[in-house]
Parts: sequence; C-alpha cells; structure tokens
Amino acid sequence: MKSYKLVVTGAGHVGSYVLANAVRMGMFCEIAVIDTLPGRAHGEALDQLQATGLPSLSAVNVHAGTPDDYRDADIVICSAGPSVIPDPHDPSAEPDRTLLTEANSTVIRQVMGDIAAQTHDAVVILITNPLDTVVYIAENEFGYPAGRVLGTGTMLDSARLRQIVAGWCQVGPSSVQGYMMGEHGHSAFPVLSRLSVAGVRWPELPRYYPSCHALDPEQVRRQVVKSAYDVFNAKGWTNAGVAESAVLLARSVLLDERVVFPVCSTLRGEYGHDGDVALSMPSLIGRGGVEARLPVALDEWENEHLEQTIAAIQATMADAHTGR
Amino acid sequence: MKSYKLVVTGAGHVGSYVLANAVRMGMFCEIAVIDTLPGRAHGEALDQLQATGLPSLSAVNVHAGTPDDYRDADIVICSAGPSVIPDPHDPSAEPDRTLLTEANSTVIRQVMGDIAAQTHDAVVILITNPLDTVVYIAENEFGYPAGRVLGTGTMLDSARLRQIVAGWCQVGPSSVQGYMMGEHGHSAFPVLSRLSVAGVRWPELPRYYPSCHALDPEQVRRQVVKSAYDVFNAKGWTNAGVAESAVLLARSVLLDERVVFPVCSTLRGEYGHDGDVALSMPSLIGRGGVEARLPVALDEWENEHLEQTIAAIQATMADAHTGR
Amino acid sequence: MKSYKLVVTGAGHVGSYVLANAVRMGMFCEIAVIDTLPGRAHGEALDQLQATGLPSLSAVNVHAGTPDDYRDADIVICSAGPSVIPDPHDPSAEPDRTLLTEANSTVIRQVMGDIAAQTHDAVVILITNPLDTVVYIAENEFGYPAGRVLGTGTMLDSARLRQIVAGWCQVGPSSVQGYMMGEHGHSAFPVLSRLSVAGVRWPELPRYYPSCHALDPEQVRRQVVKSAYDVFNAKGWTNAGVAESAVLLARSVLLDERVVFPVCSTLRGEYGHDGDVALSMPSLIGRGGVEARLPVALDEWENEHLEQTIAAIQATMADAHTGR
Amino acid sequence: MKSYKLVVTGAGHVGSYVLANAVRMGMFCEIAVIDTLPGRAHGEALDQLQATGLPSLSAVNVHAGTPDDYRDADIVICSAGPSVIPDPHDPSAEPDRTLLTEANSTVIRQVMGDIAAQTHDAVVILITNPLDTVVYIAENEFGYPAGRVLGTGTMLDSARLRQIVAGWCQVGPSSVQGYMMGEHGHSAFPVLSRLSVAGVRWPELPRYYPSCHALDPEQVRRQVVKSAYDVFNAKGWTNAGVAESAVLLARSVLLDERVVFPVCSTLRGEYGHDGDVALSMPSLIGRGGVEARLPVALDEWENEHLEQTIAAIQATMADAHTGR
Repeated sequence: MKSYKLVVTGAGHVGSYVLANAVRMGMFCEIAVIDTLPGRAHGEALDQLQATGLPSLSAVNVHAGTPDDYRDADIVICSAGPSVIPDPHDPSAEPDRTLLTEANSTVIRQVMGDIAAQTHDAVVILITNPLDTVVYIAENEFGYPAGRVLGTGTMLDSARLRQIVAGWCQVGPSSVQGYMMGEHGHSAFPVLSRLSVAGVRWPELPRYYPSCHALDPEQVRRQVVKSAYDVFNAKGWTNAGVAESAVLLARSVLLDERVVFPVCSTLRGEYGHDGDVALSMPSLIGRGGVEARLPVALDEWENEHLEQTIAAIQATMADAHTGR
Repeated sequence: MKSYKLVVTGAGHVGSYVLANAVRMGMFCEIAVIDTLPGRAHGEALDQLQATGLPSLSAVNVHAGTPDDYRDADIVICSAGPSVIPDPHDPSAEPDRTLLTEANSTVIRQVMGDIAAQTHDAVVILITNPLDTVVYIAENEFGYPAGRVLGTGTMLDSARLRQIVAGWCQVGPSSVQGYMMGEHGHSAFPVLSRLSVAGVRWPELPRYYPSCHALDPEQVRRQVVKSAYDVFNAKGWTNAGVAESAVLLARSVLLDERVVFPVCSTLRGEYGHDGDVALSMPSLIGRGGVEARLPVALDEWENEHLEQTIAAIQATMADAHTGR
Repeated sequence: MKSYKLVVTGAGHVGSYVLANAVRMGMFCEIAVIDTLPGRAHGEALDQLQATGLPSLSAVNVHAGTPDDYRDADIVICSAGPSVIPDPHDPSAEPDRTLLTEANSTVIRQVMGDIAAQTHDAVVILITNPLDTVVYIAENEFGYPAGRVLGTGTMLDSARLRQIVAGWCQVGPSSVQGYMMGEHGHSAFPVLSRLSVAGVRWPELPRYYPSCHALDPEQVRRQVVKSAYDVFNAKGWTNAGVAESAVLLARSVLLDERVVFPVCSTLRGEYGHDGDVALSMPSLIGRGGVEARLPVALDEWENEHLEQTIAAIQATMADAHTGR
Repeated sequence: MKSYKLVVTGAGHVGSYVLANAVRMGMFCEIAVIDTLPGRAHGEALDQLQATGLPSLSAVNVHAGTPDDYRDADIVICSAGPSVIPDPHDPSAEPDRTLLTEANSTVIRQVMGDIAAQTHDAVVILITNPLDTVVYIAENEFGYPAGRVLGTGTMLDSARLRQIVAGWCQVGPSSVQGYMMGEHGHSAFPVLSRLSVAGVRWPELPRYYPSCHALDPEQVRRQVVKSAYDVFNAKGWTNAGVAESAVLLARSVLLDERVVFPVCSTLRGEYGHDGDVALSMPSLIGRGGVEARLPVALDEWENEHLEQTIAAIQATMADAHTGR
C-alpha cells in the first residue's frame, strides 16, 4: 500500500535531467534529490515542484533529501561525482581518466555505503563514470542483493548506434534493433552480427536501403564512439540521452517488464569471466533489476573487441583498487 | 499535409529544457535549434537526436537550425539572450536590470526580425527577460499578426502560486485554480479574489483546510515572488517550470484547445490601456495564439497592484526605448 | 517491492473500456479481469494482452482472474452487474429501476464479499448502478476500512457539466472548474455557486463570454442530466466517460495525489447526515482512497436539491434493503 | 496553420475503440465520426466529448460527421461494414466469407467514393474485412494517390506473434522483433527467418530462453491464427488490438516517423506481382502513408506460404469482382 519513491543522487547536468524526466514520467509519488551541494539539490527540487503547479504534470512530492530517504526508496538513480576532471597541469589536454576514476570510486563508495546502510530493497541505477568500474564497486563491496545494482551502460551507446543506422537507412530509429556491448566509452563495440532493421540484417542493409552504404565494423564502432564526443565537444557534456536511459530502466523495473536492455553488471560466468569485470551486455530487466544476463554468441571481430574492452575496463578498475 | 515543426531559439539553461520537453511531448516531427553559439545548438540537438534512439521516444528530426528554419515553423519558442547580467563593477551586487533590458531588447529585435522576414504564420512564444518588454517589442515593431506573439508571462508565477497554496492546504496543485497577473517578476500579484481550491474561495480556505492559515494578500504576493528567488539563489537559474509552461502553451496552440492561461501580450483597451503596455492576464489560447484577452474585474488591492505593475513594466520598457 | 496490480470486475461495455484505459495508462504491471461470463473475461483480457505486442504499449500481464486475484490487488474497479433492466412486461417502457436495484445489490454483496474475504488493503472503485446504493452497501456491510471504498459518482456528471459550460463559453473544458453533487443520476445538481471559468464565476459568465447566455440553475441541471440520456438513447449505453473517471481515480490513488474529485461515499456527519446515505460530494483522493470529504457550503437552491437528492437515494437504498 | 483532423468511419466495436484511442492519443484537434446508424455516431462522439470534461484528457472537438468532413481530414480510419455475416440458413455454421466479401466490397466502394469526392490528401487507414480485398478496391478503383491508402493488415497478427513468442521466452513483447505477412486472416504466415528476441534469432531461442521450446513454423503459424479465434470465440469480436494498430499508424503518419510496419497495400513489382494483389509486407510508414514496400527475401517455407496466401487473397478478390 505504498506509492513509488525515487531518490536522485547527484543533481548536476545529468541528475537534473533525470529529475525532469522522472517528474514527467508520472509514476512516482515522491522524489528526493541529494547532492553534495545542498543548495543545488534544493533548487532543482523546488524548480520541479513549482512546475507541478502546471496542469500538464501530476502531483509529485519533489524535495531535497538526505541519506535517510534511501530507506523506503523503490529506485535510486545515481549520477553523483564529476563527469570530467581536466588535467591539472594542462587544462587543454585530454582529461585525465585516472583522476576521474580515483575521485568517483570514492564518490560511489560513499553513496553505496549510504544506500546499503538504509535499504537492500531499492533497485540502484548508476550513471556515474567510469561506469563499469563504478558498477563493479557498487555491486561487489556492499553485500547488496544480486541484480539490484546496475549501470545504464551501453544503453546510450546503443541508442547512438540505432540513431546512426537509422540515419543511414532513412528510417525511424525504433525500426532499428541492435546494441553496443562492453565498456560505456571508448572501447564499446557494436554487435553487428545481431543488428537488424525490421528483420533485415546488417550485411543485407544496402540491398534494401540503397542510402545505406556498406561500412566495415570498425568504422561503425568509431562513428558511434565519436558521436558521443560530438555532443561533448559541442555543448560541454552529454545528459539528454543518458537521463532518458535511466528513467526508461526505472519504468521497466517498476512495471516488471522483463525487457532486454544492454546494461552493465558484473559477469558471473558469462564469456568465461566470473566476478572479475563488470560490462554491458543484453540483460533482462524486471522488478528485481537485472533478472538475467543473456550471453549472446559473438562473431570473431566482436569476440576480439570483447577481450579488448574487458582489458580496458579492468585497467580502469585497477586504478580504483577495487576489492576483488 | 505537413507535420508540425518547432524552432527553439536559444539553447541555454531554459532552451535546452524547452527542447527536452518538446521532444518528449511527441507532437513535433521536426525541431530546429538556433543559438548564437552554433556548437551549443548542434550539441543540444544531437544529444536529443541520439536519445530518440531509445524506445521511449518517437522519431523526431532534431537538428541545429538557421533563420531559414522559421519559414515553415508552426511554433517558435524563444529564450535567447542572457537571463542575468551581473553588475560589471560589483559582481556581488544585485544584477543590473537596465543592462539586461538593453541587451535583450537588441536580442529580441534581431530574433523577431529574422522570424518576421521568413514567416507571419508561426505562433511565437517568448521567454526572454525582461519578458513584458520583450513581448511588447516583438508584438509591436514587426507588423506580426495580432495574437501570434505571446510571452509565457505569469504562467510560471501562477504555477508557483498554486503550488504554494496547494502546500498550505495539503492538496494536489491541480485542485487549485488561480493566477498571478502583471509583470513576470517582482511586481506580479495574485488575483486572490478569483482563486479557489475546488470551488472553495480564498477567504473560505481556512474553514475547509485547517492547515491553511489566513494570510493577507501582500504576504501571499511576496511569498510567490520570493519562491522564484529561492530557486534562483539555490541553483543559479530557473528553467524547469518556465520550459514546461512554454511547451504546454505550444500544445494548446497546436490542438487549438482554447484554454485560459495567464500569458503576456499588449493590452488593446483592457484596463484602460491601449497599446502602451504588455502584461500577463487571463487569455484564451488557441491555434491563432492569443485568441482573446479576458479582462477580469479586480478588487481594490488588485487594482492598486495592477497600476503598480504597469508602472514597473513601463519603466523597463523605457529602458528599451520601445518604439511606441 | 511489488508492482501495481488492478482487478477489473465486470467486463461488459464499461469494464472493457476500464480495461482498455488501464492498459494504456501504463502504471499497472498486472491486470486481472473477472466476469460472471468467464469467456468474456478471457476474451477481453486476451485481446488487450495481444495489443501489448504493439510498440505503443508497455508490457502488462493481462489475464482472466478469479476472486483470489483480489488478495494482492492495489486497486479494484467494479462495474459488474447489468446497467439497465427492461420492464419485463413492456420492454419499450422506461427501465425498471427497482429491478435493477434488487439485481445489483445482490451483485455488489457477492463482489464485496469476495473482495473482503481476500484483502482489506485494495482501494475499491465502484461504477455499478444504482451507484450510491451500491457504494452504501459496499462501504457499510463488510467492515472494509473507511475511505477504501468509493464510487465514481458524479465525476462523470461533472465532466458533462464542464463540457456543456465549455461549449457555451467556447473554451476548452479544462478551463471550467465545477461539479455536480448528489445522486449519480436523475437528481444530481450543479453547484453553480462554486463554478467558475478560469476564475470567472457563474453569474459573471455572460459578461466575459457573450456566447454564454444566462440560464437558471434548473435548466442547467436538466441539460446535464439529459446529456446522459442523449448518449444512452443514441448508442444504448454510456461507457467512455465513466471508464475514464474510474481510471483517473485509480491514478490519483496510486500517486497519492490528494486531488479533489466529486466521488461517492457514505456521509459521516456532513450536511447533517451520519451513516444514513451515500452520495457524491467534493472529496480528497489519495493513497487511502477518500482521505477527506469537503462539505462545501451551498446556496438555497442547492440545499433544496441536496435534500431532494438524498431523499431519492434513500428511496433506492430502501429497495435494496440495505442493512443500516 | 491547421490542426490535425481525423475521421472515424464506422462506429461499431472496432470504430468505437479507434475513437477512444484517438481521443487519448492527444494529437487530434477534431474527430468526426461517421456511421450508417447516425445515432450510433452521435452517441459515440458525444460520450467521448463528455469524457474530455475530465482533467486527464485534452480538448478535442469530437462530433458526428458527414462525408463533407473528409474534405480537410488528415487521416481517415475506416472500420465500416459488418465484421461477420452468419450463414443465413445455419447461424451456427462457420460464417460465410463470400457474403461478407460482397457486403463489404459494396461498403468500401461507397466510403472510398465519398472520400475521393472530397479529398486526395488524407491518408486512409482501412480495417474493414476482408482487409486485403478491401484495400485492393480502395487503392485501385478511385484514382487515389499511391501510398495514401493502406490497411492495418498483419499489424495485429504480428502483435499476436510477438506476444506469443514473448510468452514462450518470458520476456516483454517489446523485446521481440518479428512480423506476419500475407493475408490478414487464415493464411497469414510468420517470417521466422527474420524474427529475433533482442538479436537472438528464431533457431537460437531455446538456447537462451530454455522456457521456449522449438516449434516448427507451421505450429507457430497455427497458434497465431488460432489466437485470433480465441478472442473472437470468447468475446464475440476482436477490437482492442486492431484499434491500437490503426491509431499507432496514424501517429506515425502525422509524425512522419518512417517506421517499418507490416501493413497492407497493392504490390507493384514485389515478389513478382504487379497490381494483381494486395497483402501485408514490411512497409515504411511516413507522412505520405506507405512510403516504400520492403520485399524482404524469404526462405523456402515462407515462399510457399506467400504463394498460398496470395492465392487465398485472390480468391476472395474474385468474389468482390474487383476491377483489375
């Protein structure tokens, strides 16, 4: 007899969009916003609460929260922590990924500690980068029930893949089925052996969609990865797509939809790895979070990239000194 | 036989939320984003376009645009221009409203010039501050058809009023009917003589809702105005509510709903003013934009505040050297 | 950690629309359909389940149910029982209301018995006619917790009132605030003393909306009541509006919205009646069902009609031999 | 500068659901309802119009219409005509398909004549059975522009296929991609060579989804066809799924989504047929209706069934004496 409650942890570029989408999804009765800057949490919550005074939105109790709010939460969506840390010696250089890993492994240990102290029931959806390492820490260091911690992972990379293929074929993206696997980031790869446009498989596309020229998998991979940087370089961050992904996952959990999404969790025997890496692969999402992982067979190119992406993720994990 | 097209002009804090809400409203086939920073327009558009690769969103052609995009637009939503200009001599002092007026009267003349050169058909919804002066310029200096330029005005101030009263009464905001009139800003005032909670009028509220203590109108007025600053001071800007307002207006225009919202337009005989001031008052919104203004009779306190708010708006208009 | 479950009891003209709207509302994970004709329940459930194979709908487990399904239901919506019983001696005569009362008081005792045997937690929303008598029986004979049984009551009559006034004023219905009170049926009356169109009260309407001619309250009352028969006589039943009302109530309960709707429940001291009649009046709807009744003061004409409608409801209640 | 208008032709079991869904889709400003029983059209329209008085629905001008309403329609959805004609000599025998064909070929000639006399711009979505013959007549006898007439076809059969496969795999139906082709009815066949569950192809399913047992294609085909009869036999008609299909198509047209759906249109060279049969195959749906047909290569079993279904459709077409 209780209504759904969400906690949004982190109220920056991503968290504020998560909050906006969650208010508009219309399934939550209460949303608590937590940020290390209490003013920011209060300001974002109040701005959205005021918006519920408009007739297009239903009533939601949006408020700044504290860790106590985790206790009766159904869903937590966490984008806490910086998204980029510039090189302190040369701000114009490529951002230092190691510094980000160190900073956010501390952040996630703080946040997950707070959550696990209050509840083991909420499904925790993580966005904080480096995502795969952050998920690994959250899933493995706090005794949280299996499946209830997951990362948006390559949901967003997959949306980019589908949108790009849709553009080549000049069809709506919903007619493209396919996903990226592996790291959320540089080393993610498209599973082209399982991509189709309304049943037309990757190698057949140019035959049915003359506007779609044959590309080799590596070119596709690079274009998807590059598309993230196109957004990042143009506006300074990315938030629209990843926030939509997180709220879509929350909805599938609440409705126990059992839909397949490429999300990040720790492997437990899949692809020959057991507990030593977290990555994104097709997973069944329901009321319990990740209800199952579906280790789809890959082709040779994909298997090579799977090994590469695992190596890349584990290198980052090492920077975080994860307790495996 | 054409689908709906939106142009979002200005892609800052407000414009990016307008874009996000418009994509999620699901009525537009095409959305062009225009900004003086082309990278920002491109980045925001691309981020949202990638999000349409997720199954929760329908296909929308989101792209960075140019003034040519106004030509076949159905709706334009403009939040171009800075929202605050700090005092150049003392950044910690209260922002200089005169500087903002000068800057944004230039901005709106540029934008409206671009729009009017391409179309006289689009309904133009303005958000740029100082809103009432900006609307006055846009409506009166470009020969644009009557009604087709309007400002979100006190839609947001009214949402704040309803949310605050809802909180006092511990009811959902949709059960509160009421609005603020006048300037979008400091001198707006609540029309308490016409406010009700499901038919219970303002003076009766404490009788039916014991948690709602009697307040004098000036206290209510101050609390609503203050609530904007609570958001502004906490997060540095406000965007959620005003973006929702603009997109809600767009929807009512496209559906020709003929609903009453407190929006900003130039008075044409209402309250004894003809063409010398633009302010927010209850207005009928349909396919033609503002289809009618409804000059509701006010009580004595409200009439005093109407005069004060008109004086405040006209003072700002003077700073903009509007061509009346 | 459970998802929302609905039981739809009765799968006739009204129940099938309740089911259709509930599937499309997108908040339920499971919907069980119960009908005395098991084939009908199965057919309606299966038809909707197949529709969830379309991309516009989310996954819902729709299935034919049994009384066991009440056990973990969050909401029950009941439209079981015939809506009209023709005069057995003269089918062309006006339907016999007494026969309907006898039939459906038996139906509701069966249904409420089944529900109360399984749960005291579900919020039970009743549609079966004669609604006020049916609510009275359900609320008072089964020891069900206060507030958790309610009837859609004059939600629909009120929608008709707003739509009719909206038509007179040529505004969208959402700009009309107002409600009917009393019996769901012949003797309902409009509370014109509390009706407004965006803050413009009933007596002022012709001034602001010249297309709206002054009507005396009795004419308004008759026109609203007649509008139900217009639908009934034209298509043989009414279902669209009442099904929408029930699902809207369900949503407000799940979201704990605390919005005010005119729904039917047993008076507990309001208007001088305590436990001797159920009727529709403004009520606060939240997670607990009817959280409060709001006995708004009425004018003289309204008070007269309140007495008349109470007499009419009690006459029907007498036919049902309710156990007060 | 006009808002979207829909005409719903036929207000029986299917048309009334089309109307209900269209009102709730929230994209139409005006909906006209036409039926040979004017009372039924008026009653359905008025029932829905009254429902728009509830706060969950936006304003829509729903009214009974006349053929003049086609003139400025954007979309027409036609389910006019009987869905089943019992054997006049033995009502308990299987319904006579020839009688239905004769009756509804007359109906569609009347309706399409009325439409074509008023407009060549509206996209016409047909539901009337026998669907393929009805589409053939409408598309070929009235000089209507190519692509602007289509039938919901195997959209619904495909939804059933996906829902059944989803049930076998215990996943949400949105994770199943696949479609039926051919006749909307007995001879439709699943294109299993192009079906996948999140990228896992038909033959691989039991490996990843142990609850999904291998079935031969003919068993799958029969089960999908049977599932229609399960609904029909249980409730006497089917309407929920087909109405949802039609409104989903309307939305994709209005948004110019260019999504691929299995809809019915006359072949123009695909599969070796040019202008001699209409059937359902994957088609690109946009503002122009059917923007392209995608003649996916089929396997041997599928090709056999394609020939069989074409023969079945042409036999029905012969009964209608179509003017090819």
